[in-house]
This record gives sequence, structure tokens and C-alpha cells, in this order.
Amino acid sequence: MLISGAGGENTIIEIVERICGAADGRVAVGFGDDAALIRMREDLLTIVTTDALVEGTHFRLDLTDAYSLGWKSAAVNLSDVAAMGGSPTWCFVSIAVPDIEIDFIEELYRGISDAVERFGGHVIGGDTNRSKDRIFINVVQIGEVESAYALLRKGARAGDRVLVTGWLGESFFGFRMLAEYGRQAAEERYPVLAARHLRPEPRMLEARAAAETGAVHAMMDISDGLALDLVKMCRAGGCGARIEAARLPVSDSLKEAAEAEGEDAVIAAAAGGEDYELLMAVDAADVERVAREISRAAGTQVSDIGEFTSDEGVFLVKEDGSTAELKPGWQHF
Amino acid sequence: MLISGAGGENTIIEIVERICGAADGRVAVGFGDDAALIRMREDLLTIVTTDALVEGTHFRLDLTDAYSLGWKSAAVNLSDVAAMGGSPTWCFVSIAVPDIEIDFIEELYRGISDAVERFGGHVIGGDTNRSKDRIFINVVQIGEVESAYALLRKGARAGDRVLVTGWLGESFFGFRMLAEYGRQAAEERYPVLAARHLRPEPRMLEARAAAETGAVHAMMDISDGLALDLVKMCRAGGCGARIEAARLPVSDSLKEAAEAEGEDAVIAAAAGGEDYELLMAVDAADVERVAREISRAAGTQVSDIGEFTSDEGVFLVKEDGSTAELKPGWQHF
Repeated sequence: MLISGAGGENTIIEIVERICGAADGRVAVGFGDDAALIRMREDLLTIVTTDALVEGTHFRLDLTDAYSLGWKSAAVNLSDVAAMGGSPTWCFVSIAVPDIEIDFIEELYRGISDAVERFGGHVIGGDTNRSKDRIFINVVQIGEVESAYALLRKGARAGDRVLVTGWLGESFFGFRMLAEYGRQAAEERYPVLAARHLRPEPRMLEARAAAETGAVHAMMDISDGLALDLVKMCRAGGCGARIEAARLPVSDSLKEAAEAEGEDAVIAAAAGGEDYELLMAVDAADVERVAREISRAAGTQVSDIGEFTSDEGVFLVKEDGSTAELKPGWQHF
Repeated sequence: MLISGAGGENTIIEIVERICGAADGRVAVGFGDDAALIRMREDLLTIVTTDALVEGTHFRLDLTDAYSLGWKSAAVNLSDVAAMGGSPTWCFVSIAVPDIEIDFIEELYRGISDAVERFGGHVIGGDTNRSKDRIFINVVQIGEVESAYALLRKGARAGDRVLVTGWLGESFFGFRMLAEYGRQAAEERYPVLAARHLRPEPRMLEARAAAETGAVHAMMDISDGLALDLVKMCRAGGCGARIEAARLPVSDSLKEAAEAEGEDAVIAAAAGGEDYELLMAVDAADVERVAREISRAAGTQVSDIGEFTSDEGVFLVKEDGSTAELKPGWQHF
């Protein structure tokens, strides 16, 4: 049933409040007033991040489903909270939708709420709007972090090792396969890669474990692709980096898919976006300990892919020994 | 010059950071990292509100300009902060835009920043995105309020008087004239009404003065129109209300315009949306004092338009003595 036939905006609000439920005692007012009222903690730094997902730019309705879309909308924000070393608290969701199926709205909020609650957060407010013909979703995620554990993009020093969690390139290749073969066929052929694109997992436990080691000099999440995000970290730190193609964490799933499709897995890993893995700068002496703590906390591997350098510029040493400079190429416009 | 020709997303980010500038010392990290890091105060309640403006639903580009659009995007959120009795602090802006003129972006952020800074807040973060063919703006406004001054929608009691600030119906009528005559002609003929629609003034000083009297039982901003918002306040308070058409604050500007156009100014005042005036429930004995404090703080008049009742239902007593029940009629869908 369409939104208009199901009771309109009031029905959306009822669904959202039912799914998102009650928040904890620090929330004096959640849904249902002009704004939320929250009791914050002064001993912690408050994290605020906001990211929008726009139909036609960030997602296509034929290549995803409402639950996955909701999950991802929250996950990209949760990943930012993780990247600061913190934990999520409250989430606010604004949507603008045409007159679509009311079930879509319900599944969308289920996906958002599941992602947020999985990491201890709650959806406590937002805004619902009509749009003419496209879906817009904006999520605001608030979080908290002890100031001693807060990790910024800046802080990498020459000599630090470049660490990344998990696997690179899977999400990008998954998106390519979804676009190429359509959703059903892509999910049958490449279920791992498709899932990585559609329902990314914020590296929350990994980031927290990394922050608690006290040994990480800089951290960020890889959302625009390793190449671009490493350039950002180097600029913030006033340094350069040299990474090795042979050390990039390419999963068997990605290797097999790239081989079957006649494509280059290393390029996907080096430049593909939306990994939502963590990028870290760590003193060489601490690499083993940081990797061990992350693995212990979350079972996720950590790869040492190269070194921060005092020279500017970010270089990729290819497997044949040649070197290419990585420059920001990818832009929305 | 279009965004694509002016340097793309990076140029937008440079413009935003230049216009929005530096925040105060409580902001450990603003723009340029995965998220903002802020030192909140524990002795105050934190206010969080978010509202989106969607092209085709909330605005038409032929009827507004970039500066006004930015101003309004911030103002509707600032109005929510005001309605809780608080003051704004930090603002986060997400936009999704097609490849439009870069000057439009600059003016948009100027409007947002001017509105937020006028009331002591700062834009310190956000997200910029590409959209296919429509503009989407989401603003998150954070604020603070002493818990003793926080005012909710609930709290109206039978016997309380219904108070409103300023003038009702001007924004709605202004929008009608803009749509009817086009922007230039409407602004020439009805400059006050058009401005009220395009650049609403959050009643920040008024709300703060009202909260500080300690005599306001419930407060909200009138965004969906008096009729609908009064029903919401009555539901939250478990009461009804009876208001008098003859007491609705209809400005001379609106009276003259309605007469010239052969329309009913009272209907615009009772049901038109986007006034962004304050609606309050106040004990009869305190009306004069509340009105005086608001006038002293901001020079804005306050009208006593009727009474909250123990019977449910919200009724409008017309000038001919007949009575009509006000029910929520207006919905986005």
C-alpha cells in the first residue's frame, strides 16, 4: 500500500516510533517535540557526524532493497564515529520520499535501527518529508569518546607504518558486479562482494580496540578509496607514504571474481571506494600489538601495507617494482 | 561557472570552510575530519533538531534565491531550538545538488551561516553530495538549555490562555502571492508577506524571554499552521482549546493583501503554515507579565487568542459567533 493510502505522514511517524522504540534515561525528550533534549557527558568528547545518501548518486533502487539501504545509511555514519575512536549514542534520520510503498519505509527504518542498535545507539528523532521523485536519506549520528582515545586524521609521522583492517576493494567490485549483472545474478555469483557493498559493517569494535592501545597516531575510515583517503591522511600529517601493491589485503573472493571477470583486483583494492575499513598510522614497534588487540576484540585481520615518509606524495610500488603516484582523482563532480 | 568547471566538490568544501570560519574553543575538531568533536556541557540539556528542505516540496528555485533558501533552511531549525527555550550552538549542513552555479553554493552557505551566527551559533560540519536533478538541504542544529527553562509541547492545562507571538498567516499568503504572480511582481506588491515566507525570523529572543519568566507551561513553534499545531499541543497536554477568530493577530499587510485579492485573511492566519511564531500556554494571571517580558526583550507583540479547555477538541469561534472544529487536515502526503 502506498504512503498516501496508508494514512500519510502520520503513519510514517507511527512506524518510526514503533521500530525505534524508547531510548535510555539520558534522553529527556526524543520523538514528538520540536527537538530532542539530551543530557550529555562533560567528561567525554561528543562526536557528531552527518552523511546523506541520495538516490541516483549513492544508490539505485533496482540494485538494493529497503532494509539494506537503511542499514547502509546508518553504517556510513557509524563508520565515522568508529574512525574517531568512539561509540555511537543517538541517531537522527531525515528522509524525503515520493509516495512509495509504506512497507519500504518500515524496512528502511528497520535497517537503520538494526545497524545503530547493534553498536549500542538509538534512533531518537528526525524529520519526514515528501519529495517529488527521488529518495534522500540523511543520518546524523552522535557518539562519545574519551579525549585520550580520540583519533584524528592528522598525526601520522614519517616512519610510521600504514595499517588497514580487513579487505579492500570488495565493495567497489561488488558494486561493479551489481551494475553489470543486476542484483539477483550478482548476488548469486558474488554474494560476499555484493553484501559488502549493500550492507557494509562499520569497524566499531576494531576502531575501539585500536584507540585503546594508545599506539595509533592517526586513524580514519576508508570511504573514498585507499588512494584518496591515504592522500588526505598524508596531507593532514604533513607527510607522504609509500605502499606496496603486494601487501594490499585482497580477499580470495575478490581475487576469484577479478580473475573470472578479467579485471585487476589490485586496482579495485587501491582505488575502489566504500570499503569502510580503518586506515591507521602506527609506530613500527607497535604494529604487532595493535594488530593483536584488534584481532582479539573483533577477529579482524590487520595488514601492514607500507610506510609514511618524510617526502610528500603518495606512491604505490607495483608488483613489477615500478612506482605510480596516487593522486586524488575521484570526485563527486 | 558550474561546480564541475570550478573545481568540483573540493571547491565547495573550500567555500563552506571560508564562509563558516572558525568555531569557539569548545570545538576540538570541526571541518576536515571524519566527524566533529565537541566538548558539551553537562549542566545544560543539549537540544538536537534536524529539518530538511527539498526542492519541489519546500521550495521552488524560481520563487526564491540561494541566500534566502540558505537562511530559511537554518531558520526552520533555529525556530525549533527557540521553541525548546534554548540557544543554538553548532550547526551541520548536508547538501545534495546537481551541477549548478558555484555562486549559488556560496550564497546558500552565506544565508545559512548568517542565520546561525545571528543567534550565536556556528556551522562546523556537514556533507556535500551530488544529486541528479534536485536540491536537497538538511540542517542539524544543536543547542543548549537550562533544564529549568526547557519548554515542551506538553504542559498546557485547562484554563491556561493560548498565546501567540507576532503575526499569523503572512508566510502562507506570501507563498500564495509568489506562486500566483511570480517572484518579482509578488515582492513588489507584497514585500512584507514575501519576505516572511522567504526569510522567516526565528523567535529566538522571544522564546528565551518567555522561558525565563518561568510562567510558560508549554511552548512550540507554529510551523504547520496554528490549527494543526494547536491540536498537537492539546493532544500532548490532554486538553482542548477554544480560540477566537477576532483575536487572531492579522497584520495590516495581510489584511490589505487579502482584501485586494478577495481572500480571507482569517483563514490564512488560522490554517496557513510556516509562520514560525511561538504558541504558548500561560496561566491567565501571568499573561501580562509574559507579554511584557517578550516585548521588552524583542519588541514583538503577544496576542491572547483564547483558552485551553478540559473538553477535548479545538474550536474556532468565528466573528459571526458560529463555531468550527479545527482538525489536522494538512499533510505532506
